[in-house]
Amino acid sequence: MDVLKEKRKISEELRPFFRPKSIAVIGASHKEGSPGNVIFHNLIANYREGRLKARVYGVNIKGGELFGEKLYKSILDVPEAVEHAIIVIPAKFVPDAIEECGKKGVKVATIISGGFSEVGNFELERKVLENARKYGIRIIGPNGLGIFDAYSGVDTLFIPEKKETDEGLKINMPRPKAGFISFLSQSGALGDAVLDYMYGENLGISKFISWGNKIDVDESEMLLYLMDDETTRVVIMYIEAIRKEGQKLVIVGKEFSKKKPIVVLKGGVTAAGARATWSHTASLAGNVRIYEAAFREMGALIAENLLELLDMAKALSLQPPAKGRNIGIVTNGGGPGILVSDFAEKAGLRVPKLSKETIEELKKYVNEGIIPPIATFPNPIDLSGSATDESYVVATETLLQDPSIDLVIVLALHHPPTITKDMPRKMIKVIKDYQKPTLVIDMGSAEVSVWVRKQFDDAGIPSYPLPERAIYGAKALVEYGMWLKKNGVLEKHLEEWHPAI
Amino acid sequence: MDVLKEKRKISEELRPFFRPKSIAVIGASHKEGSPGNVIFHNLIANYREGRLKARVYGVNIKGGELFGEKLYKSILDVPEAVEHAIIVIPAKFVPDAIEECGKKGVKVATIISGGFSEVGNFELERKVLENARKYGIRIIGPNGLGIFDAYSGVDTLFIPEKKETDEGLKINMPRPKAGFISFLSQSGALGDAVLDYMYGENLGISKFISWGNKIDVDESEMLLYLMDDETTRVVIMYIEAIRKEGQKLVIVGKEFSKKKPIVVLKGGVTAAGARATWSHTASLAGNVRIYEAAFREMGALIAENLLELLDMAKALSLQPPAKGRNIGIVTNGGGPGILVSDFAEKAGLRVPKLSKETIEELKKYVNEGIIPPIATFPNPIDLSGSATDESYVVATETLLQDPSIDLVIVLALHHPPTITKDMPRKMIKVIKDYQKPTLVIDMGSAEVSVWVRKQFDDAGIPSYPLPERAIYGAKALVEYGMWLKKNGVLEKHLEEWHPAI
Repeated sequence: MDVLKEKRKISEELRPFFRPKSIAVIGASHKEGSPGNVIFHNLIANYREGRLKARVYGVNIKGGELFGEKLYKSILDVPEAVEHAIIVIPAKFVPDAIEECGKKGVKVATIISGGFSEVGNFELERKVLENARKYGIRIIGPNGLGIFDAYSGVDTLFIPEKKETDEGLKINMPRPKAGFISFLSQSGALGDAVLDYMYGENLGISKFISWGNKIDVDESEMLLYLMDDETTRVVIMYIEAIRKEGQKLVIVGKEFSKKKPIVVLKGGVTAAGARATWSHTASLAGNVRIYEAAFREMGALIAENLLELLDMAKALSLQPPAKGRNIGIVTNGGGPGILVSDFAEKAGLRVPKLSKETIEELKKYVNEGIIPPIATFPNPIDLSGSATDESYVVATETLLQDPSIDLVIVLALHHPPTITKDMPRKMIKVIKDYQKPTLVIDMGSAEVSVWVRKQFDDAGIPSYPLPERAIYGAKALVEYGMWLKKNGVLEKHLEEWHPAI
Repeated sequence: MDVLKEKRKISEELRPFFRPKSIAVIGASHKEGSPGNVIFHNLIANYREGRLKARVYGVNIKGGELFGEKLYKSILDVPEAVEHAIIVIPAKFVPDAIEECGKKGVKVATIISGGFSEVGNFELERKVLENARKYGIRIIGPNGLGIFDAYSGVDTLFIPEKKETDEGLKINMPRPKAGFISFLSQSGALGDAVLDYMYGENLGISKFISWGNKIDVDESEMLLYLMDDETTRVVIMYIEAIRKEGQKLVIVGKEFSKKKPIVVLKGGVTAAGARATWSHTASLAGNVRIYEAAFREMGALIAENLLELLDMAKALSLQPPAKGRNIGIVTNGGGPGILVSDFAEKAGLRVPKLSKETIEELKKYVNEGIIPPIATFPNPIDLSGSATDESYVVATETLLQDPSIDLVIVLALHHPPTITKDMPRKMIKVIKDYQKPTLVIDMGSAEVSVWVRKQFDDAGIPSYPLPERAIYGAKALVEYGMWLKKNGVLEKHLEEWHPAI
């Protein structure tokens, strides 16, 4: 296949999912908290706030009015052209709705409704696809959450945003901040849960796509679309099964990986998990080894669990790949520094002894009184509990300049009084002067800890609250760099790389 | 050795560290933010608030007054008997201070001051110990953070509680809530960091002990003390090296493990980590296999990283050990349920098919309309996104009653509108009716998610924000149960077990 040609075609075909000129919600509902109610509400609000550029029309067979907007009895009554139809009506009515969409000239449809193959209604699902094909309508769904685009305001998440608790109304279904991770999920529930988790972890999202039964648009097409998407710097995928066109996914995936990294979490990798997968999506989870080989062939990194998936994505979305496996560590906490070294080596990274030149340079700073005299330099550079902001700046810059160090981990515990509020700002400045992959750890979860990490995250330097989690990020940058190198595109990739923030 | 006899002796000897009748801070300092200032301030505050029962005296060679309290020029001038001396003066003065403590009849001393063997001053350290032995004073330290006891108010953490940020004063060094985990750390920096982390994770602590150079009281003695400590349900340890009496630790550890679990994280398990350990505490990290064998012999669980250490501790501090490896899972999220199954089996747990009787029972609830008809029962019981609070209650109770299920994991995603604020309360009630180990997962980190987890945690049912983290907890309960069984004490242990909350 000609990947570039296919990409041009797909870019145009899928564009209305994310940047439609107009939207119709078929099944806009008066019933508070129902999917058709929540989706119409959120899209209207996004439009009124100016975030969503598309005009939004409500369609309800009974007509009437909702949120101050007229409801049309049929999409055919909508006075303007509609590019993107969002369908939230009972399954049995969906084939006819698609037929009407076709007549209206709709280009894409996100089908939220469930009740198709997942409950045995294969014929109904086939009919939906047949009608869509007749009119060239591309489909995401059915039986999924649809789409969340943090930039364009397209948002079909139908879980109510707030919920009553014993302590009053609280945020139930948050939206993460806009960022550079795009997430393709074969499970809707996992999608909600991960978005909720990303919100609290200060992880930024670009696009979220929940496939549901995935009868039309699939992984390889979505990768083609995201290949040129400026706000997508990494794609994470939750996959239970690839039912068709696995070969195409490998080919597209490999081209994609040369530009941007992919991280995959596979569900159903054990006997019990595979059994559950069968009940969940009637998918054969298949031979794990075959999936792994395919993922590796396409250059995707494989995450062992959700924490690793998201910690890897955080690093990959903000930092360049590493040229080698050598990690330099600087810390003001002896014990934590030892743990970073242990976790790094266990993950297949190297924590080499520092070069003579680097040690000389560090000793110079000791003589100048900038690094405390009790500091030790075995890598980790242990600046000791008396380290100041300035100790960090000079030690980190020394590591950034050392050509034998491929990636830097700054383990800056905020607790000692000698570390001030200026530390993040000063460190960000020096780290930004180099394009060497750098990660920050500040352990803790109370206010100062959260504040320090936010400074780094918001400046594009990924931070983590535990050593092992930074190592997930470091490993991802190293493994991705090694894959690019093996495929002869590392140098080109690094030349073209620029900070997202 | 006669462990019980030794325990009685140690219980009396170490008691004044945690429950002293009186305290003297030798080195109470006027310099704001200095260790001697912070410690004296916090102890006085705890005393005035009534949490600390011990009268607190300040000692400063210059005399004067601090926080409205008279400062004595020598501990010998303090008008009453002193049980516990906290020493925060330059290293060179410490031997004489111990001598004076001896004359005063002080029973225990926590030496915060650094500047001993860790910087080569072996002779000074030897002198401290010699003076202490002369008077029978027991010592924790020097060069550590000392002690934090969430119940008695003894608190020698010297990091200032608040720190200036660009957004004003924020919590810098929080104290976790009172709970049932005691933490022994060979690294002070790690101690601060872990306490900070525990605070945000809603993990409860009983006692924290930072050994520093550990010249006197050691791990095995502290285990003897904690064996009968009512608020200690699990001990977690960060160990770089055991320099002496490893055999004693194994003997005591094994007796301890029959009553309460221990979880160990060893620093310096790789070449790089071991090199850093040598720089950090001049310890030979030693052969990892030997340590592992010793930890296993004493029944300690080995954590691979900090997340695992704390997630294991959370489960062990609140739930009884499991009788077997069979896990039952109930969820309203298909994908997340698959992941729990995968992670469980990868961790060596079993997710068996449900018994005919259990499936019949569940089908009865489907017929009664309590469990949705599209629910599936392969284990995980996938109640589907339409599950209600009541679906959860009946499905969970069915698993709790099933004799072939040893541990239950409730993966209750709060997002769907059918899950209400009553779910935690109703679930807590049914889970509390059984003493079968049960863990809860609610994925997310926004408000409702945090609120739901807090309800369960505060009721003594450990909750986790990610599936893999609950599996760390489950694995700990199973491995500990299997160790107790192997040693013939599981039944007795379970008979005596009662909920901490």
